[in-house]
Amino acid sequence: MDAELLRQVLEQVAAGQSTVESAAQKLLKFEDLEFAKVDYDRVRRQGFPEVVWGPGKTSEQLVAILGKLATRHPVALATRIEATVYQEVRRQLPDLRYYPIARICALGQPLLRPGVITILTAGTSDLPVAEEASVTAELCGFTVERISDVGVAGLHRLLAQQEKLSQAQVLIVVAGMEGALPSVVGGLVSAPVIAVPTSIGYGASFGGIAALLGMLNSCASGIGVVNIDNGFGAAMLAARMLNTLRAGNMPSS
Amino acid sequence: MDAELLRQVLEQVAAGQSTVESAAQKLLKFEDLEFAKVDYDRVRRQGFPEVVWGPGKTSEQLVAILGKLATRHPVALATRIEATVYQEVRRQLPDLRYYPIARICALGQPLLRPGVITILTAGTSDLPVAEEASVTAELCGFTVERISDVGVAGLHRLLAQQEKLSQAQVLIVVAGMEGALPSVVGGLVSAPVIAVPTSIGYGASFGGIAALLGMLNSCASGIGVVNIDNGFGAAMLAARMLNTLRAGNMPSS
Amino acid sequence: MDAELLRQVLEQVAAGQSTVESAAQKLLKFEDLEFAKVDYDRVRRQGFPEVVWGPGKTSEQLVAILGKLATRHPVALATRIEATVYQEVRRQLPDLRYYPIARICALGQPLLRPGVITILTAGTSDLPVAEEASVTAELCGFTVERISDVGVAGLHRLLAQQEKLSQAQVLIVVAGMEGALPSVVGGLVSAPVIAVPTSIGYGASFGGIAALLGMLNSCASGIGVVNIDNGFGAAMLAARMLNTLRAGNMPSS
Amino acid sequence: MDAELLRQVLEQVAAGQSTVESAAQKLLKFEDLEFAKVDYDRVRRQGFPEVVWGPGKTSEQLVAILGKLATRHPVALATRIEATVYQEVRRQLPDLRYYPIARICALGQPLLRPGVITILTAGTSDLPVAEEASVTAELCGFTVERISDVGVAGLHRLLAQQEKLSQAQVLIVVAGMEGALPSVVGGLVSAPVIAVPTSIGYGASFGGIAALLGMLNSCASGIGVVNIDNGFGAAMLAARMLNTLRAGNMPSS
Amino acid sequence: MDAELLRQVLEQVAAGQSTVESAAQKLLKFEDLEFAKVDYDRVRRQGFPEVVWGPGKTSEQLVAILGKLATRHPVALATRIEATVYQEVRRQLPDLRYYPIARICALGQPLLRPGVITILTAGTSDLPVAEEASVTAELCGFTVERISDVGVAGLHRLLAQQEKLSQAQVLIVVAGMEGALPSVVGGLVSAPVIAVPTSIGYGASFGGIAALLGMLNSCASGIGVVNIDNGFGAAMLAARMLNTLRAGNMPSS
Amino acid sequence: MDAELLRQVLEQVAAGQSTVESAAQKLLKFEDLEFAKVDYDRVRRQGFPEVVWGPGKTSEQLVAILGKLATRHPVALATRIEATVYQEVRRQLPDLRYYPIARICALGQPLLRPGVITILTAGTSDLPVAEEASVTAELCGFTVERISDVGVAGLHRLLAQQEKLSQAQVLIVVAGMEGALPSVVGGLVSAPVIAVPTSIGYGASFGGIAALLGMLNSCASGIGVVNIDNGFGAAMLAARMLNTLRAGNMPSS
Amino acid sequence: MDAELLRQVLEQVAAGQSTVESAAQKLLKFEDLEFAKVDYDRVRRQGFPEVVWGPGKTSEQLVAILGKLATRHPVALATRIEATVYQEVRRQLPDLRYYPIARICALGQPLLRPGVITILTAGTSDLPVAEEASVTAELCGFTVERISDVGVAGLHRLLAQQEKLSQAQVLIVVAGMEGALPSVVGGLVSAPVIAVPTSIGYGASFGGIAALLGMLNSCASGIGVVNIDNGFGAAMLAARMLNTLRAGNMPSS
Amino acid sequence: MDAELLRQVLEQVAAGQSTVESAAQKLLKFEDLEFAKVDYDRVRRQGFPEVVWGPGKTSEQLVAILGKLATRHPVALATRIEATVYQEVRRQLPDLRYYPIARICALGQPLLRPGVITILTAGTSDLPVAEEASVTAELCGFTVERISDVGVAGLHRLLAQQEKLSQAQVLIVVAGMEGALPSVVGGLVSAPVIAVPTSIGYGASFGGIAALLGMLNSCASGIGVVNIDNGFGAAMLAARMLNTLRAGNMPSS
Repeated sequence: MDAELLRQVLEQVAAGQSTVESAAQKLLKFEDLEFAKVDYDRVRRQGFPEVVWGPGKTSEQLVAILGKLATRHPVALATRIEATVYQEVRRQLPDLRYYPIARICALGQPLLRPGVITILTAGTSDLPVAEEASVTAELCGFTVERISDVGVAGLHRLLAQQEKLSQAQVLIVVAGMEGALPSVVGGLVSAPVIAVPTSIGYGASFGGIAALLGMLNSCASGIGVVNIDNGFGAAMLAARMLNTLRAGNMPSS
Repeated sequence: MDAELLRQVLEQVAAGQSTVESAAQKLLKFEDLEFAKVDYDRVRRQGFPEVVWGPGKTSEQLVAILGKLATRHPVALATRIEATVYQEVRRQLPDLRYYPIARICALGQPLLRPGVITILTAGTSDLPVAEEASVTAELCGFTVERISDVGVAGLHRLLAQQEKLSQAQVLIVVAGMEGALPSVVGGLVSAPVIAVPTSIGYGASFGGIAALLGMLNSCASGIGVVNIDNGFGAAMLAARMLNTLRAGNMPSS
Repeated sequence: MDAELLRQVLEQVAAGQSTVESAAQKLLKFEDLEFAKVDYDRVRRQGFPEVVWGPGKTSEQLVAILGKLATRHPVALATRIEATVYQEVRRQLPDLRYYPIARICALGQPLLRPGVITILTAGTSDLPVAEEASVTAELCGFTVERISDVGVAGLHRLLAQQEKLSQAQVLIVVAGMEGALPSVVGGLVSAPVIAVPTSIGYGASFGGIAALLGMLNSCASGIGVVNIDNGFGAAMLAARMLNTLRAGNMPSS
Repeated sequence: MDAELLRQVLEQVAAGQSTVESAAQKLLKFEDLEFAKVDYDRVRRQGFPEVVWGPGKTSEQLVAILGKLATRHPVALATRIEATVYQEVRRQLPDLRYYPIARICALGQPLLRPGVITILTAGTSDLPVAEEASVTAELCGFTVERISDVGVAGLHRLLAQQEKLSQAQVLIVVAGMEGALPSVVGGLVSAPVIAVPTSIGYGASFGGIAALLGMLNSCASGIGVVNIDNGFGAAMLAARMLNTLRAGNMPSS
Repeated sequence: MDAELLRQVLEQVAAGQSTVESAAQKLLKFEDLEFAKVDYDRVRRQGFPEVVWGPGKTSEQLVAILGKLATRHPVALATRIEATVYQEVRRQLPDLRYYPIARICALGQPLLRPGVITILTAGTSDLPVAEEASVTAELCGFTVERISDVGVAGLHRLLAQQEKLSQAQVLIVVAGMEGALPSVVGGLVSAPVIAVPTSIGYGASFGGIAALLGMLNSCASGIGVVNIDNGFGAAMLAARMLNTLRAGNMPSS
Repeated sequence: MDAELLRQVLEQVAAGQSTVESAAQKLLKFEDLEFAKVDYDRVRRQGFPEVVWGPGKTSEQLVAILGKLATRHPVALATRIEATVYQEVRRQLPDLRYYPIARICALGQPLLRPGVITILTAGTSDLPVAEEASVTAELCGFTVERISDVGVAGLHRLLAQQEKLSQAQVLIVVAGMEGALPSVVGGLVSAPVIAVPTSIGYGASFGGIAALLGMLNSCASGIGVVNIDNGFGAAMLAARMLNTLRAGNMPSS
Repeated sequence: MDAELLRQVLEQVAAGQSTVESAAQKLLKFEDLEFAKVDYDRVRRQGFPEVVWGPGKTSEQLVAILGKLATRHPVALATRIEATVYQEVRRQLPDLRYYPIARICALGQPLLRPGVITILTAGTSDLPVAEEASVTAELCGFTVERISDVGVAGLHRLLAQQEKLSQAQVLIVVAGMEGALPSVVGGLVSAPVIAVPTSIGYGASFGGIAALLGMLNSCASGIGVVNIDNGFGAAMLAARMLNTLRAGNMPSS
Repeated sequence: MDAELLRQVLEQVAAGQSTVESAAQKLLKFEDLEFAKVDYDRVRRQGFPEVVWGPGKTSEQLVAILGKLATRHPVALATRIEATVYQEVRRQLPDLRYYPIARICALGQPLLRPGVITILTAGTSDLPVAEEASVTAELCGFTVERISDVGVAGLHRLLAQQEKLSQAQVLIVVAGMEGALPSVVGGLVSAPVIAVPTSIGYGASFGGIAALLGMLNSCASGIGVVNIDNGFGAAMLAARMLNTLRAGNMPSS
């Protein structure tokens, strides 16, 4: 447990500024809702609070978990939420916002953090995955620069962005079909590249396997790959990089 | 059967210039060696004689088939021949040449044909497959232009060839790992592109599957793909294009 | 950039025949619509203008992209468009035509080009994919010859077409299930063969994988394979062949 | 247990023509060698005695099992035996014969049975698998007709056999690469077709998967498929057909 | 072409009993409907007329093809027909019957043929595939014996059928999940076994792959496998066996 | 940490019966050898000490780890050890025994435990995997009953063991090829069944995948599956069952 | 057949307490409903009665089978039943209960048995599979302890349960995505672990394959794996362990 | 091109300190060796010079490429070099060092850079891949902290490192088999995690696919995955993070 938090809470109890019950709540590392154990400690361990993954959860479960998270963190968000599910959940949580392309819903506003994440897409059809990454990054407090539709079949569209690319701090590159864009970008820049394969394609794209394999086998070194369509995970990896490695945040070595 | 050939042979028999036996041989569409049926008719149907695929054939079988083919065609060749097998076969066929990088052996010399095939490789390790294509194309009588090690991780190496690329008549693009090179080339040129995935790579390249899938899912249109490591097949497809479609060879439509 | 185009546009500006704005538009290699970068330069690089791939694009995006393309090219087309999407898009683009079997919609009429593409199907169920190829080829300005339902289980149906086959300039062979037709056709003709596996089949056809593997492993040489159900890509490869290699178009070597 | 055999053995014991021990041996349905249970009853249940599958068995185990089988059946055979293993086993069983292409070794001679099995191969490289089928069939007592190298890339070689094919009783068709031959043969004949995919090929043949899938998805109906390279199994299926269904053997219905 | 048919038709024309047009129709090996080439010659080559595979065909196409087939053969049938499609087709072909479990529709009645096909299922859920086989076999004129729900998890249910099994002429064994039933049956009988994997199962059954692989790798020899859920193909293979190999039908060897 | 052990060790130190150093050693939960962290605590947590997995470890590493384990436990064993590796390791550890079929080497002797594990194999070729299970189980102190070569193709061999099977406490069933034996056994007994797929087979057995899928999809319930060829893991699961669940060992509930 | 049951039934007939018909019914090992053979003998062989697997069965079939089973056993249950199917079946069987999360329906109440099964889930979305296991176990008469949402990304939630885990008799661990939870749990406990992969996940989880492979390759020994989403099978394996191995139930060895 | 380098070189030419030839060499972005195009520009674009991938390259090619690179960069290295290849290459390049576990050879010494990379392995057998990462990172100039054999089956070994982990700047986690370690580590730390699956395992590990899928599907967010056994790529991604994102290196945003 975080020693500083512990002292602070105990002083509030001692000073009568906090009831025993609410102090216990604050010091709990997780809360057991029977169907879920809400992880309040994640922000201390990982730098960002727990995010809810929507699929397979009922509206009631989403209401309960988001409600709990919102009492402890400035922002609470859930990903992979269909519009109809959002409508149901909002009945209980009227402040809930919805980002329809990204399929994310959120409560609260993030504290801004320094750092820019550059997010590229190969084609227009990859936008929903890129938006999942963009909205997640923005709700973590980072600035996002979006560059769309720069797939390798029309290389001049990409090369026209070369200055932006070479100044990027961290790049997320989203591509379906053969997934070649991260290789080309990886060869042009010095910043770390996070490659996101999408399920866009047909036939032998096998729901994104072709793009995934292309990215894992990239002839450009220095590329980290996340799961197919996993815009959220890409944003969290970029957030970890900026949060941990930027000046001032760097652990002493 | 080819009517012209028939008349020519019969006239030779009538003129006593050919024995009945040798005339029958010439008119046979295939010859049955029990373990193989040598296809003499292929050159009429397809424009190029039969080529022997080496794997799984004994040296004796190779000697017999190559010997038969060489009596009917200017060039007889076999692919996927290991050096030790070549040594054994050459004992019976002393004129047999060997191209070690391409693993091809051949008898005779081709008639030259008009047309240039441009053959690119993504990396140095892809050279054996590219050489299988190059040697096959040259033994079919075509001119080959080789451009090596222009993989997408160092794009400036490829862009430096742009003039050569835009003047190409037909391109064979050979790449392993993520197989992204045909997509980029396909976006830069107007000539047909034949993509050859290679088994170069490791781990999730799965012996060339990653490159194969990348090429099949190319976001650049107008790319035909052949089997993994199939330099021979790529050359034959290019040869068909040049042979059938070039001025003078075009069937009337 | 194309030097001839550049001079022509500048002369129009100089002559007051074109505003600066419209001249800039014409010289732009691509136009940035934020969600898409419309590639005006493709016709110069590749011989044919950009074609829109429908899946994952909203009606609004399709309207915008098709509208832009139609201002610069004689024909603008989009593939993989469902009938309901077509209805929505046509509200904004009333001249839009629809080819229901091919699932293609188009604006404008092509300039005719010399050259014939012969398109075969193994079975009646493969027709939609073959029509995607046929309509694309016709909208590129080529003539199409269709030969349907000549699968290998009833070989006499195919052999009855042998004369047409042997005169073909380039063949597209469309087959599902075991995908054997390109091998048999490839053995009968001298023209290049483009093989299109379809997802027609069930069980161990695995959505077209069986046909795809059959075609990649063809014992007939000189066959180029495209993605499963990719009639469009097959047509574009045939178009490249005819456009680049026909008499008069051949680059000097 | 077979009632007739039981009576016969008991009469021999009663007549003093057989010791109790040897009678017990004859009536045993299987004999337990600790590492193997030799199945003497199989000939009664299935029409043919047990055949030994070689891989993973030591020479000592092969000697013991073949020795036991040979005491009860006219022929004892083992498949997938490498030449070096054969040499070791023959030291203990000097009468053991070896069929090197088929990799089969055998003791004894079969009783001849009526019926002909026609065995086709697509290419010369498929011969070892075809020979496993041929030798197995001959050691079961059937006549074999071999037709080699009639793959679909040179259709005239196959069509030249059409009379033989249409008179066949049962056909085994052996092919690697795309495995298209059974489909074409299946469309030409009325006899049952047993398709054997081989591991001949490379790249996307995946050790015979391409041929296997091609045969399972054949557009010609009436084809039964066995495992990759399973010449033995194909022969046994043909043997069952001839043994059970020929005139005189047909069970009354 | 069938010489007997030819003479018969010509005599009818000579005798004025047939118009030239209807005679030409009868002698045609196939009829070209543009979208389909109806194969009238199949019954001569293979012993059974063409059967229509429903998926991907429109109702209009089904009406046309079935109508044509029915004019030449006693029975015309189509497989994989959904109930709603059947309703549409019957509007044009009012005599069309429907077998809902088997999803087959048919016109006409078969001529009865001697021979019994025994069809087993592992579980109740496999019945639709077994019925596709049963109805096909019955419409070919054979007798079918059905044995249901004898999967290996309750072996006594299967062993109770042992007498029926040992008298079978040919067996079709239909199973999903692990597909073990053909192995067990194959070890109990001497008749040929046709194994049909079904897509019944979940998770790692992968739509029937587990059952398919189980059957291909059966430790019991003499088993021919067809595609997943391919009851029709299994029936046609059994029909070929009975038709070709039964007494009186056996070609002379 | 185990409180009882702690007290015991401290009392020995207090009584001068143990040096501080050796006491520290005994209380260490793991020991860091730099390349490995030997887990001394496993026996407390899991009931059995750590076992060394041989592949990828050098002889020096094996010597060091086995030596350490042997000082703390009655038996130390390593699996997947080739004979040549054993020879090298024995130079440093002369008491090391080797079980060649199981490819296991061991130091020390187990304390016997109550409980019998019944281990079946489908075929003789599966014996090495079954022996890995048997030797592991015996070195854990349990009694093993071996039943070999009872595959489903000769069911009477299995049914002859029915009494033994119905009395078994826990069964390990080892099978390659289609892996059907666990389903049949699972349907005959009430004891838990541990299914071990082996890599025995060829072609579409895919190195044991067919057997693995067969076992995972078993229609008999109550079967737990381990990795392909994982005789060791099967034995450890059986050991856990007997150790935890037998009378006297059962935790109070 | 069970000797005790036989005697008991015969005594009832002798005493006039049972009609011949009802006695015959009781002694039948299975009952043939034509589409199904209800297995009454399973409880004797395996300790638990047959359970109906719902998919692919009609409501009529479910009514008939459940009705039959309920006359012979205290509990009759069917798994994988959708709510709408339950509604239909309940019309004929008004006492039928439904467990909506588990998708199980049941008639009757179990006899309680000693033994506790501990069931863990990695995430809230895995609950339906865990409930299939829980409800099955409870309907077999066992006590279930549920521990939810203890996935490895927040390890403190799992470590907080360590005391419960170390006292468990048998554990079922349900996890999707990477399926790492069984490995971690397996390393913490001595009881047998049954791992259930779920289809929860997306992209490269491939419907549960990633979790399945993770569990099969667990570095913790002593884990048995069942099919993806197979909560039922996990419960039956746990039930076999408790039923056979607990004190008093242990067969003498 | 780098403006600073350009000015510096031109000044040297102007000052007569450099010949025109050597100046041209320095300004070349790549050098064409016919079989390879050595990329001198990579250090400018990406921060680190080109590294040679050994497989498929001859010793002569390695000598030529390494020699060229060493003239331009402080360190030149090649990965995946077998010891025998190293011996051959060293004959021409006597200063070449070899790191046998990592299979890397190198010329020259790196300039040290600030930053620490923490590299964990799940098991001893994963060390070679971890060493490829460690040696690469050290040759890039970074400090490496190694933590070995902390796999999840003995969690206390990992938890004992928790302080080191929470202070890490960037972590590389190397694991085979089920690949669960990155998920657990990812849940404990805030630094970015690079997951490297290894091919260590057997059976259903499929050469590292199980570990790869496990890592891609991690329930812990913020993990980037590289190819199987790709220690090199993991180090380069970590190097990009430290190089670009550390204080002072951060591009202004």
